[in-house]
Amino acid sequence: MIAEIISIGTELLLGQIVNTNAAFIAKELAMLGINTYHQSVVGDNTAKIKEVIKIAEGRSDLLIFIGGLGPTQDDVTKQTIASYLNEPLELEIESLKLIRDYFEKTGRDMTENNQKQAYYFENGRFFKNANGHAIGTYLKKDEKAYLLVPGPPIEMERMFHDEITPFLATLTQDDRQFIVSKTLRFYGIGESTLVSKLNDLIENQSNPTIAPYAGNHEVSLRITASGKDERECQHLITHTIDQIFSLVGDFYYGEGDDNSLVKVVGKLLQDKKMRISSAESLTGGLFQSTLVSVPQSSKVFRGGIVAYEEAIKRDVLGVSPEILETEGMVSEACAISMADKCREKFGTEIGISFTGVAGPDSLEGHPAGTVWIGISQEGELSFAKQYRFMRDRNGNRSQSVMQGLDLIRRTLLKE
Amino acid sequence: MIAEIISIGTELLLGQIVNTNAAFIAKELAMLGINTYHQSVVGDNTAKIKEVIKIAEGRSDLLIFIGGLGPTQDDVTKQTIASYLNEPLELEIESLKLIRDYFEKTGRDMTENNQKQAYYFENGRFFKNANGHAIGTYLKKDEKAYLLVPGPPIEMERMFHDEITPFLATLTQDDRQFIVSKTLRFYGIGESTLVSKLNDLIENQSNPTIAPYAGNHEVSLRITASGKDERECQHLITHTIDQIFSLVGDFYYGEGDDNSLVKVVGKLLQDKKMRISSAESLTGGLFQSTLVSVPQSSKVFRGGIVAYEEAIKRDVLGVSPEILETEGMVSEACAISMADKCREKFGTEIGISFTGVAGPDSLEGHPAGTVWIGISQEGELSFAKQYRFMRDRNGNRSQSVMQGLDLIRRTLLKE
Repeated sequence: MIAEIISIGTELLLGQIVNTNAAFIAKELAMLGINTYHQSVVGDNTAKIKEVIKIAEGRSDLLIFIGGLGPTQDDVTKQTIASYLNEPLELEIESLKLIRDYFEKTGRDMTENNQKQAYYFENGRFFKNANGHAIGTYLKKDEKAYLLVPGPPIEMERMFHDEITPFLATLTQDDRQFIVSKTLRFYGIGESTLVSKLNDLIENQSNPTIAPYAGNHEVSLRITASGKDERECQHLITHTIDQIFSLVGDFYYGEGDDNSLVKVVGKLLQDKKMRISSAESLTGGLFQSTLVSVPQSSKVFRGGIVAYEEAIKRDVLGVSPEILETEGMVSEACAISMADKCREKFGTEIGISFTGVAGPDSLEGHPAGTVWIGISQEGELSFAKQYRFMRDRNGNRSQSVMQGLDLIRRTLLKE
Repeated sequence: MIAEIISIGTELLLGQIVNTNAAFIAKELAMLGINTYHQSVVGDNTAKIKEVIKIAEGRSDLLIFIGGLGPTQDDVTKQTIASYLNEPLELEIESLKLIRDYFEKTGRDMTENNQKQAYYFENGRFFKNANGHAIGTYLKKDEKAYLLVPGPPIEMERMFHDEITPFLATLTQDDRQFIVSKTLRFYGIGESTLVSKLNDLIENQSNPTIAPYAGNHEVSLRITASGKDERECQHLITHTIDQIFSLVGDFYYGEGDDNSLVKVVGKLLQDKKMRISSAESLTGGLFQSTLVSVPQSSKVFRGGIVAYEEAIKRDVLGVSPEILETEGMVSEACAISMADKCREKFGTEIGISFTGVAGPDSLEGHPAGTVWIGISQEGELSFAKQYRFMRDRNGNRSQSVMQGLDLIRRTLLKE
């Protein structure tokens, strides 16, 4: 099966938004083993959409249309394709009810246009929208298949994840009845290094497939196996994961699509019934803010101090003037003292500190990217580690936070 | 002139990278008044590239090809188009020299493939690559124009900025010699409201053009005028800006592409020789981290406290137990006290506090999104304002920070 991704929206043609949707869907298709040779973008224009469909039908089997399912006048995707295919649309009652409820609850008037979002191909099927009003729809006609999904990424991605990817998986199955995926997450190794270490494994694997995804400071691998039942898939996946761990297991920190280093650290602290506080200089509160980004952080996080200015490190946090004078702010001694002082002040089982040079300028003779991270733990010897990051100011700051999280994780796991 | 953007690269079809290039070029074209009705993506495949050219020639005048100019075997864009058009390629001597120098300096062997990057259309022109090796090239033939640019954004964007945009501007000029742009930035108004308030103005304007851009918590308008000289452009822009200000001036906070609310606030504090500290609860350090994201923040920011837990607000920050017991953490009194206490503790001229409910759960009977922001200022009456945000946990947190910045800005400007 050959798919083609057709994104519809004048805002894409004007460069007002970046087409992240096409990349998302392309990746999902690749994971399912569906080939894509073309992507297109066209405006919210009936005639131009029809021209593009005609071209796409001449070269692809599955046409995926993104966007133009909204309630405004310029959203014409569904009506245009229905008229092109001469196919009736049908109201989906449950989705219509959800839209009505929404307008009632918010006290706004519902228009005919809002109702439009609940239509689907009568001879096809629909996909629910858990994060919005426009449902997705699919129709197969004359050996060609048409899939329509909403444009807002938060709606489209959820719809794909919950309903469309499993549905497309059934289309690509032959005697293989099951598909099982697992995502492994890595920190401290770049995508290219990870891929080169796994090169033999990736090149010689077809089932499971191994797909790397690079995040901002981390890399994931999605392992997908297909088999005649779930047990066969799980067996295949387990075997592949064992091979992966033997090569790059030291960088693995957790699994799952909806996971992150901060979640793993939060869970670890909770399991160990430990609370944390933080003293930050160059990161300026970013570490604490990252902890707080996860719900339930109040179970492990009490608070902290941002001691940006030297005098604040001394007067509010309590770092000794001798350390600041002889060792300086960007030093092992200062990082250790900051971690100790904040742990005492906030009465927590663990304290972490960040001091260094975000950039662009150097500080105390240390180049931008020089960072000390200190760890203070009840009943343990405090320590600090030096890092040298090579990003810009905010890249160095966020990398410090990730490194700090990883340092806590490794410290707590060592015990 | 109608342009079409054709991105070439199998990594785009696999969703391994997001097509930011298409958005960048689309925006540049829109600014130049060049219409784009189609964008396409195709893999590094000679036959498929030729098919796409044929389709594009049937509907557009200027075909812009991005990518596939690299040194590896699969980079076939330039050779494919040259063969399709039956046009000779020519070595650009200066660029070839730069490539040779690079390989000499890095001590690596230069191959025939590397030399490939210095070819351009003999009957056209070339564009230098300040950030890489693959030069750009342009050819006009039989009423159609072909522009080829390299794929790495850092190379492509620089090339556009330095050479291609000015070149395309000469193509679209008739008697108008100059183009001048200005970006106005707004906070506290959504894109749709801004556009509807300016609707008449936008609909009835063709020179200058008014293009809205929505950011995460703010909106920009880019005003672009063309005229016979700079003075005429400036006159046109000034007149339009006056009209815009009369309608939505209250939400304007600054101008320029590379500006933000935090930069404007930082500059304001610096001008007034005021230093700031912050006490944060639900934002968890995000306000301070945002201040620190801008270089030179040490001139205005001393530090602050993240008082996430109730006991920390009392024991470390010094909020009175009475306030916490009778009014609660999510209250005007608590916000004011937090702002006062941090200002005293950190010895700054102004202090700001954030307390409230990030979500997803409610707190002390207040729904998620309820936020108090307090301001304490030397010699002025402290005050706090209540807000009710409707986003998710981290949306509420970042909106609180933006609102806090705007509150400081408005407070300092009122004096």
